[in-house]
Amino acid sequence: MQHFTLLIHCKDQKGIVAAVTNFILKVEGNIIYLDQHVVVEQNIFFMRLECELTNTTHTVASVKEDFSTSIATDFKMSWEFYNKDLKPKMAIFVSKYTHCLYDILGRYSSGELNVEIPLIISNHEDLRPIAEQFNIPFFHIPFTKDNKEEGEKRQIELLQEFNVNFIVLARYMQIITPKLIELYENKIINIHHSFLPAFPGAKPYHSAFKRGVKIIGATSHYVTEELDEGPIIDQDISRVSHVNSVDDFIMKGKDLERTVLARAIKLHSERKMMVYCNKTVVFY
Amino acid sequence: MQHFTLLIHCKDQKGIVAAVTNFILKVEGNIIYLDQHVVVEQNIFFMRLECELTNTTHTVASVKEDFSTSIATDFKMSWEFYNKDLKPKMAIFVSKYTHCLYDILGRYSSGELNVEIPLIISNHEDLRPIAEQFNIPFFHIPFTKDNKEEGEKRQIELLQEFNVNFIVLARYMQIITPKLIELYENKIINIHHSFLPAFPGAKPYHSAFKRGVKIIGATSHYVTEELDEGPIIDQDISRVSHVNSVDDFIMKGKDLERTVLARAIKLHSERKMMVYCNKTVVFY
Amino acid sequence: MQHFTLLIHCKDQKGIVAAVTNFILKVEGNIIYLDQHVVVEQNIFFMRLECELTNTTHTVASVKEDFSTSIATDFKMSWEFYNKDLKPKMAIFVSKYTHCLYDILGRYSSGELNVEIPLIISNHEDLRPIAEQFNIPFFHIPFTKDNKEEGEKRQIELLQEFNVNFIVLARYMQIITPKLIELYENKIINIHHSFLPAFPGAKPYHSAFKRGVKIIGATSHYVTEELDEGPIIDQDISRVSHVNSVDDFIMKGKDLERTVLARAIKLHSERKMMVYCNKTVVFY
Amino acid sequence: MQHFTLLIHCKDQKGIVAAVTNFILKVEGNIIYLDQHVVVEQNIFFMRLECELTNTTHTVASVKEDFSTSIATDFKMSWEFYNKDLKPKMAIFVSKYTHCLYDILGRYSSGELNVEIPLIISNHEDLRPIAEQFNIPFFHIPFTKDNKEEGEKRQIELLQEFNVNFIVLARYMQIITPKLIELYENKIINIHHSFLPAFPGAKPYHSAFKRGVKIIGATSHYVTEELDEGPIIDQDISRVSHVNSVDDFIMKGKDLERTVLARAIKLHSERKMMVYCNKTVVFY
Repeated sequence: MQHFTLLIHCKDQKGIVAAVTNFILKVEGNIIYLDQHVVVEQNIFFMRLECELTNTTHTVASVKEDFSTSIATDFKMSWEFYNKDLKPKMAIFVSKYTHCLYDILGRYSSGELNVEIPLIISNHEDLRPIAEQFNIPFFHIPFTKDNKEEGEKRQIELLQEFNVNFIVLARYMQIITPKLIELYENKIINIHHSFLPAFPGAKPYHSAFKRGVKIIGATSHYVTEELDEGPIIDQDISRVSHVNSVDDFIMKGKDLERTVLARAIKLHSERKMMVYCNKTVVFY
Repeated sequence: MQHFTLLIHCKDQKGIVAAVTNFILKVEGNIIYLDQHVVVEQNIFFMRLECELTNTTHTVASVKEDFSTSIATDFKMSWEFYNKDLKPKMAIFVSKYTHCLYDILGRYSSGELNVEIPLIISNHEDLRPIAEQFNIPFFHIPFTKDNKEEGEKRQIELLQEFNVNFIVLARYMQIITPKLIELYENKIINIHHSFLPAFPGAKPYHSAFKRGVKIIGATSHYVTEELDEGPIIDQDISRVSHVNSVDDFIMKGKDLERTVLARAIKLHSERKMMVYCNKTVVFY
Repeated sequence: MQHFTLLIHCKDQKGIVAAVTNFILKVEGNIIYLDQHVVVEQNIFFMRLECELTNTTHTVASVKEDFSTSIATDFKMSWEFYNKDLKPKMAIFVSKYTHCLYDILGRYSSGELNVEIPLIISNHEDLRPIAEQFNIPFFHIPFTKDNKEEGEKRQIELLQEFNVNFIVLARYMQIITPKLIELYENKIINIHHSFLPAFPGAKPYHSAFKRGVKIIGATSHYVTEELDEGPIIDQDISRVSHVNSVDDFIMKGKDLERTVLARAIKLHSERKMMVYCNKTVVFY
Repeated sequence: MQHFTLLIHCKDQKGIVAAVTNFILKVEGNIIYLDQHVVVEQNIFFMRLECELTNTTHTVASVKEDFSTSIATDFKMSWEFYNKDLKPKMAIFVSKYTHCLYDILGRYSSGELNVEIPLIISNHEDLRPIAEQFNIPFFHIPFTKDNKEEGEKRQIELLQEFNVNFIVLARYMQIITPKLIELYENKIINIHHSFLPAFPGAKPYHSAFKRGVKIIGATSHYVTEELDEGPIIDQDISRVSHVNSVDDFIMKGKDLERTVLARAIKLHSERKMMVYCNKTVVFY
């Protein structure tokens, strides 16, 4: 039996749900999951639907074709169709921090992530041994003031060569270039080590310590051109107290970073998110 | 414009969502909220739908009538229709603890709860002054070994006299009788001061202290004949440590009890729950 | 038996703990609680000590006198001595929001707060009925652009007349004047309805909604001249999602505000905090 | 400069803190951390102290000797002295689950854990490749009904050969034998995949799902002869809802297991715990 996931958004109109569910009925699909959401302020309708096709005369490809030429057109929908049996390809970008990389690769090796990881790209050589430990191709693309364009070009070549669907910045300490952001719009996931919008930019744990907060956080978000301003995917927090040093903040923060980034990878790879107006709609 | 909330459950079948949404389309309703859930193990379909009627030729009453004689019958649905403009009537049962009662009445007076509170019933006189402080009729129905039947009879008379829709046990220290449970099936909400199923029964904070747990909890649930075994509505927890005494557990626990009970009241009064197989489906 | 709480801070030096504990031994005190903390960066030593006096020849007053003229002088300590049997007097300032006021008064009436509440001050008449419901004197001191000085003067007169030890701003929507802040340094507790330093100032729930955060928060802090920049006492958070409207944020936030403010009141009234460098040391 | 950690417990008596701090003063130690706790019910005094020796005429060894023959004897103390510069040796026991093992080895390789891991022991061959990936000796000791004694003997030989200080059961699916428990009393850490005392024994996620709980948990504890009844070290929880299947519970639970086990390893290896009456005193 074939499975697919359908993501839709369009102007809210009467009869959309009826139209979509009638369509699924027509192609002999069985709805496993359906959730919808209307953003009242902007009058936008969102839907996520998981379906199994019970009759082999209908395939994911034929249903997709049928959908695009009928109600998708009628309702002027933006939509995405995913074959659930195909794993998305995820590139990891790293610099020198090991904790998120180990965590992702451990989960990957344990079969927890529904992705393929064809390559790891880094601006430093330091983490090559970890990539080798897990048998994943590692590419060193150094970045200096003068070679930005060249570095970006090389990154894009590799991403295209390996058919990468989305990118995870696992504490990658380098600004992503606008061209790459454009090519992978809402497909580059970053983990920021603070509870955004508190403490954007560099050294958030130091700033949090200085301010005397009682809770620290981490935030996963899509990368946009505005630093740490992209659509937030997930956040989590951990309590701290006056007995904790900056080093304690950093150590506790690592646990947050690992977990919050892993959750974002799961949500993205399982097609559970849509983005609008710099926000995410997350269907659990 | 009239609003209603519709709760449905039935055997999962192809075409239910399409049928319901087509029906709403027909009565010129605008779907504000729709969520569905299928319990795969038992093949049961659940749906919650909020709707506004855009054409005055259709009223909540006419739509309800229409629904009951058409698809409700076709799909053999169990269903409930609620006019959103009518507030449910909630009775509070208390004994001697004040914290949950103050919290509920404070929220009620602040307009946070979409209910009416026609009366408070207690097996003790102690909390009458609080009821009077908030101008709510208070009835003292003492319970002894010998007057159980009489007490129950008096409770039921009062509940019917005041047209009570559901009951909240705000730390009511008395077993609810089977007859009352039957009359108010899945309509009596209790707050238990532990993280169920850990520490059922009496003195859970003392047991938690003795066991040396690092987290305590509270649980709101519907009352069934099996003590502390009813469908769980909500739970929450609070960290404790070796520095905390039993009294600290009790104090921290009060905050949990207040919050977890208040959330259950909101969910129930806003018709966001369905019960099956001793579990709750909670549509947020 | 008499009880006291002693708070100390001074330059970190060898032998402080030994000196203090020898002193307690000498006055036949029994240490019930002792916690210390050294802020390494600034080399400051903090200690909190609870003690019961086992021999009636020593009283809190005599021990205090003895302490001040011996080791307090030797180590150049800043210190505070509190007789545990005297309840601090707490004024409440409110405007129009009811939820924090109801919560505080409910806890107060339930005996959860170790304080006396001699008066409530407001810049509006709206909440007078709640004060009356709980039998607490209510004073209306309106604030306009032109009468600030006069209003402040009246506030200070009342606070002194009622011997107020500390002030709680229960969603008081008025800037506290510098003179009052100076008189009650680190003795005015505010609740801000965001996770500071995110969203300071007005309408934080609206800003949080706009930014698309996945977690909202509340922060209790001491009031300083810089708005929302004072020493943080406690913070807590609640998850939100795309299904939540601004009104949902506000409703969930009320629960946070209540709890986080109540915790701050407890910590302050039980003498569990010290302030330095715009941070709090909180001894649990 | 040498550092040590001192853990003490004894009958609560007047003058203990003074005696200990005077002793530290005498050996020219600088107290970096001191925390104490009195269990009132049993009248037991606990203290944790971290100290740096500022004068090289005093070494950890000489101070320890001095301590044991003076106040340790005077106050009849139970005590432990740890040289902070020596890393404890930790054995890992596994069966077939990979997630906790990957997590521990990732943290270990990242330098987050202050331990040495000289060996991994398993009753199955399955996880040998992971041990090899991280260059840690792996020993397969199968357990059947008939070879329990032999298997236990081999385990103990290996643990002694490698001078193992404590053992971590990273989802080891085998009952630990009484002899091993006796040899490593309060030195074997287990992770149980429920919020104890709820759902002890096998298949807790299935039981939690069946009961319809709204929160699941994980518990790290020391192993005692009573299954899942040992002193609790740490616990944490995660929210679940009706949309989550048993598989979702298991997946969310893995994150809890990883984190709660890692925290227990940190607390134990940093000598931050003492055990009494089947409870832990945890000094943060």
